Amino acid sequence: MDNVKQIEKDFRELLTEQNAYREAITLIHWDMRTKIPKKGVEQRSEVVGFLSEKLHQIETSDKMKYFIDILKDNTEDEILKKTIEDCEETYERNRKIPHNEFREYVMLQSKSESVWQEARENNDFSLFSPYLEKLVEFNKRFAGYWGYENNIYDALLHNYEPGVTTETLDRVFPDLRKSLTSLLERIKQSTSKPDPGILTGFFPKADQEAFSLAVLQEMGYDFTSGRLDETIHPFAIALNQNDVRVTTRFDEEDFRMAVFGTIHEGGHALYEQNISPQLAGTPLSTGTSMGIHESQSLFWENFVARKEAFWERHYDTFLKYAPEQFHKMPLNQFYRAVNEVKPSLIRIEADELTYSLHIMIRYELEKALINGEITVDELPGLWNEKMKEYLGVEPPTDREGVLQDIHWSSGDFGYFPSYALGYMYAAQFHNTLKKEINFDDHLLNGRFNEVREWLTRNIHQHGKMKKPLQIIEEVTGEKLNPDHLVTYLTSKYSKIYDF
Amino acid sequence: MDNVKQIEKDFRELLTEQNAYREAITLIHWDMRTKIPKKGVEQRSEVVGFLSEKLHQIETSDKMKYFIDILKDNTEDEILKKTIEDCEETYERNRKIPHNEFREYVMLQSKSESVWQEARENNDFSLFSPYLEKLVEFNKRFAGYWGYENNIYDALLHNYEPGVTTETLDRVFPDLRKSLTSLLERIKQSTSKPDPGILTGFFPKADQEAFSLAVLQEMGYDFTSGRLDETIHPFAIALNQNDVRVTTRFDEEDFRMAVFGTIHEGGHALYEQNISPQLAGTPLSTGTSMGIHESQSLFWENFVARKEAFWERHYDTFLKYAPEQFHKMPLNQFYRAVNEVKPSLIRIEADELTYSLHIMIRYELEKALINGEITVDELPGLWNEKMKEYLGVEPPTDREGVLQDIHWSSGDFGYFPSYALGYMYAAQFHNTLKKEINFDDHLLNGRFNEVREWLTRNIHQHGKMKKPLQIIEEVTGEKLNPDHLVTYLTSKYSKIYDF
Repeated sequence: MDNVKQIEKDFRELLTEQNAYREAITLIHWDMRTKIPKKGVEQRSEVVGFLSEKLHQIETSDKMKYFIDILKDNTEDEILKKTIEDCEETYERNRKIPHNEFREYVMLQSKSESVWQEARENNDFSLFSPYLEKLVEFNKRFAGYWGYENNIYDALLHNYEPGVTTETLDRVFPDLRKSLTSLLERIKQSTSKPDPGILTGFFPKADQEAFSLAVLQEMGYDFTSGRLDETIHPFAIALNQNDVRVTTRFDEEDFRMAVFGTIHEGGHALYEQNISPQLAGTPLSTGTSMGIHESQSLFWENFVARKEAFWERHYDTFLKYAPEQFHKMPLNQFYRAVNEVKPSLIRIEADELTYSLHIMIRYELEKALINGEITVDELPGLWNEKMKEYLGVEPPTDREGVLQDIHWSSGDFGYFPSYALGYMYAAQFHNTLKKEINFDDHLLNGRFNEVREWLTRNIHQHGKMKKPLQIIEEVTGEKLNPDHLVTYLTSKYSKIYDF
Repeated sequence: MDNVKQIEKDFRELLTEQNAYREAITLIHWDMRTKIPKKGVEQRSEVVGFLSEKLHQIETSDKMKYFIDILKDNTEDEILKKTIEDCEETYERNRKIPHNEFREYVMLQSKSESVWQEARENNDFSLFSPYLEKLVEFNKRFAGYWGYENNIYDALLHNYEPGVTTETLDRVFPDLRKSLTSLLERIKQSTSKPDPGILTGFFPKADQEAFSLAVLQEMGYDFTSGRLDETIHPFAIALNQNDVRVTTRFDEEDFRMAVFGTIHEGGHALYEQNISPQLAGTPLSTGTSMGIHESQSLFWENFVARKEAFWERHYDTFLKYAPEQFHKMPLNQFYRAVNEVKPSLIRIEADELTYSLHIMIRYELEKALINGEITVDELPGLWNEKMKEYLGVEPPTDREGVLQDIHWSSGDFGYFPSYALGYMYAAQFHNTLKKEINFDDHLLNGRFNEVREWLTRNIHQHGKMKKPLQIIEEVTGEKLNPDHLVTYLTSKYSKIYDF
């Protein structure tokens, strides 16, 4: 027993080392995406490579294995038990890949990303396809090493959404698609359409920033544990529990980019800022999955900041910063405009309704790729066909089509479904939360604190102590159910589009 | 021979590791001084502690010793030879200190800094004095471990200004003091005094920043290898040769803080940006000493940016950003005002002439402390006496006296002289440079590039390949000579103060 206590102590020391590397690497990533001068990048990449290798060495070390083997059945500390589970999974998954294959893959990833950028710039898929083929091959091989029950793609999905399988997705996605496309049809046929044109026009960056900061503050984002910076691709990043940063992008012709972007990233940040301090320093001190993380950002972006009640409360504040043109605009016209639905070519510009359709296309294609049912060369054509079928629009070139996302170039197969899961999770949480607290009333009165506390109590605090589907079931009392998203969207858009 | 080549290769790999830790630590320091949210500091300190320990382990490793022993006499690569010398010195100096004493000292340092802050806030030297006593004790002991020829203080001085000894300082400082105080006397008696009051008044931060950036640009600071940020205590920092950052502080009531501060730090940054790329990745890729570094910042701050010719060239640019009040101000009135001399209590607010007097006081006191000639308790009284004697002003409390500087609280004994050496070095470089290029003419025409190139050719590029006094002698053809500073100041102030 005394011996176990000592081993636990030694194990915690190893976690501290692991954590130090992770935190240093994360700071470098934040800096590389926000501040680093152009010429500093090359040398900094070497540094991050070195530190990542060190981290990888610890994760797969014999020392780690020793702690796992002993503490797995002997520790009585619940947090340590889960920590050991997490470390074991990382250890096993990493050890299953031969070291030389892993190195080769890391080099391929970094090369592929820059080739993809070039291919996108030149609108030439053929530049990228040989790399994509290799990436697919590696991922198939890794999936084989990791193992799976029914579908090889499940082994990859597991990296981003443990517990969710193709079986689940193939159950919910087709129904969801049917509902979304029929809703989209009614919206298209509506004669009462919002006019998003009224939202564009010069809106100085400083004023957008001031309003974004005011909303972040009200959401309960803790500025003594975070900060907002400018970047090209907005993100939220947790360096540690008390340093969770948000970035945003300003478009002086369209305030929506910065305002909704900041709120979205703020939702991610609230998750990381409110994980239980008891988990600090363990690998459990982060969001439990990409999908649950996305549910938090989408909750704030859509279920809060695109709601009528939110704007009833905040329109005056908004007008304090907004340029002239908004001052004569009735609230309802503004509210409808920020909720326009319009099928578009680019995923990251998609609205709440069509977004999930973009995801399904990617899911179907990458699943087929990994299962060897289609080839890389067939991708651009299939992409365009599906866009036409699901969204009714067709990319004029691959740049607006198959080349638009970075994910595949980084080898991130299995990642995309998390985005659509995030929408469904958020809607399901929203449905439960509405029954437990007077949500609209809280929004009208700016009592975001109680909303944030509900999310913290039910989701944030647990970090990786609970798996995604476990959280869904415990919080909402049912399994993943896409109906909540459909009901929510139907009710929302029938009012906006008057059908 | 082939064997040596292989060992050189392995050694370079160790240098790469060492460098990766150093770069990660430096980024954390930059972030902690500019961006980190308050609550993130505690955990980040742990991370920096861990990484510093790793770096220290490499520097003092048996592996390092192995490379030193073999390559010292066998490498034919000049850069490697110097690198080995540098690594050997670091190895020897660190190994001479018993590990437990070093750990104890590091903890004392970090504790002392916060106690000093508290003492300064409460204006209570007695809080700080027990810590200062311990710091002095440790430094005496370390100096003993390191060894010295004549004066124990030389062993500490060596950390900041290798090659310079108390013998040198005791030769140059008294003469310099005599000259400076007599010059100060004449200035005091002058009836034609500049009026610095005309310089203060509201000057928006954004405009100060725009002008500072314009000057940095013209100095040849490379913004693709650097950036300017805001901070409380301005500094320049080299993460790598292609990422050398500058920070500044804005006082909207007094533009001098930001403008001269940025130029000063820009001078440090130019040094680090222009070290030969051949030295990249070795410990030689940095300024050769604190004094030479300071000579570069002071050169740009005083010998460029406080010169008449500089303002003749830049006054129009300045007026583009400056508020109304400056638009009716004759250039000469402005020039004289930015060159006011006035004995003051605070070192970092001192002018070009009195600054070195502040340094001499600190030097004399810390040398006496380390030599056991005075006690810590006597410090405040002696400080005030010397202030009165050298500068004619007396601190009303210790906050404006002995408690003003952070250096002693970090155990940095032997550091202060570098500042005064920097002034003397800069004046000596200036004297040589004037003979070789048409300096005033270059300033008048904004041809800073040729000035910067002269400094790069003679100083910057060498990094630590040359020792400070070696550079002085090679560049100026003579030993350290304080007369150049005196001549320069006399000529400058006799014009400004009309004597």
